[in-house]
Amino acid sequence: MPKIVDHALRKLEIAEATWRVVKEKGIKGASARNIAQESGLSLGALRHYFPAQDDLLVFAMQVVKDRVMARIQRIPTLDLPPLQKVLSIFLELMPTDEEKRVEMEVWFEFTLHMKKMNLPAFDAQHDGIYELIEEVLSYLDELNLLRQGLNRSLEAERLYAVLDGLALHALLDASRLDSERIREVLQLQLASICKADAI
Amino acid sequence: MPKIVDHALRKLEIAEATWRVVKEKGIKGASARNIAQESGLSLGALRHYFPAQDDLLVFAMQVVKDRVMARIQRIPTLDLPPLQKVLSIFLELMPTDEEKRVEMEVWFEFTLHMKKMNLPAFDAQHDGIYELIEEVLSYLDELNLLRQGLNRSLEAERLYAVLDGLALHALLDASRLDSERIREVLQLQLASICKADAI
Repeated sequence: MPKIVDHALRKLEIAEATWRVVKEKGIKGASARNIAQESGLSLGALRHYFPAQDDLLVFAMQVVKDRVMARIQRIPTLDLPPLQKVLSIFLELMPTDEEKRVEMEVWFEFTLHMKKMNLPAFDAQHDGIYELIEEVLSYLDELNLLRQGLNRSLEAERLYAVLDGLALHALLDASRLDSERIREVLQLQLASICKADAI
Repeated sequence: MPKIVDHALRKLEIAEATWRVVKEKGIKGASARNIAQESGLSLGALRHYFPAQDDLLVFAMQVVKDRVMARIQRIPTLDLPPLQKVLSIFLELMPTDEEKRVEMEVWFEFTLHMKKMNLPAFDAQHDGIYELIEEVLSYLDELNLLRQGLNRSLEAERLYAVLDGLALHALLDASRLDSERIREVLQLQLASICKADAI
């Protein structure tokens, strides 16, 4: 295998190992020692791939962000009505199965940790969701589906809050916020920004 | 001082010390040793007040919850129009000053930690905010300010998501979400559930 591919693959494996460690032991367990062990590497080998621990954590978050975005980027190509596409995009951001639940639990932990450590690489503006929401609103607007006279900037902010708030609450209380209720709240939010005859 | 009062005061002091420790060192720093030191107590004395570490963490959260609720319960007695009262209640849940910022940062960390540890005492349903939102909707309804035909249960869920999502985002990115923008988003959300002539 070309060395450069091997290097990239190995970094991916380490990122996956990092996620498993954080999932099991929390961010406080995400030490170089634990991650090296979970990766089957020596501490020295781990440091070859990630000289700084913070770089490793940022890379591990980036991998998940890329994975989520890859799932989302498939949606516009699907044969669905526009509002169904938008709903499908929003549902990708919700912890509706075990894989996404793990992703989000760790994501919240990482984000709070990075914030506390003042690592600017992962403030909220850089998880890409806010930009995604602005694109969704532009898409609805181009199709003439948005209500007249909306304040687009404030609606983006509110939608962003609904999405992350719902995701957080679904993580914390999955019995109240099951998939069906999540979908209903998202539809309600869509209805409040779209023209009545668009729904 | 009567012994029972002294005991309660001492527990409060320990809760405050716990918050300072979590604020500085994160939840991973909230060890009995660190909290005892911050409280100026021996480990044995700390254990006299809180035999189990989890009880201490739950109590520390309860103290903040009580403080927030006390601020909120003053609002209905103020001489303000109904929608201003509701807006003021919502603003109490936002990190608009340094004290509330610290409260919320630690609150999010605690909540995720408790969830991970499967301590049911502090799942989302028990922070009291969801019930508070239901009360607010009832209040608006009694005053005949709510739009006709709302699905109250779904609107409570959405409002809850907006509030926690906004609070989280304001923590993570205070430069985008300053007090003015927070207020505007909250007013937008209120406008979407209230009758047009109520605003």
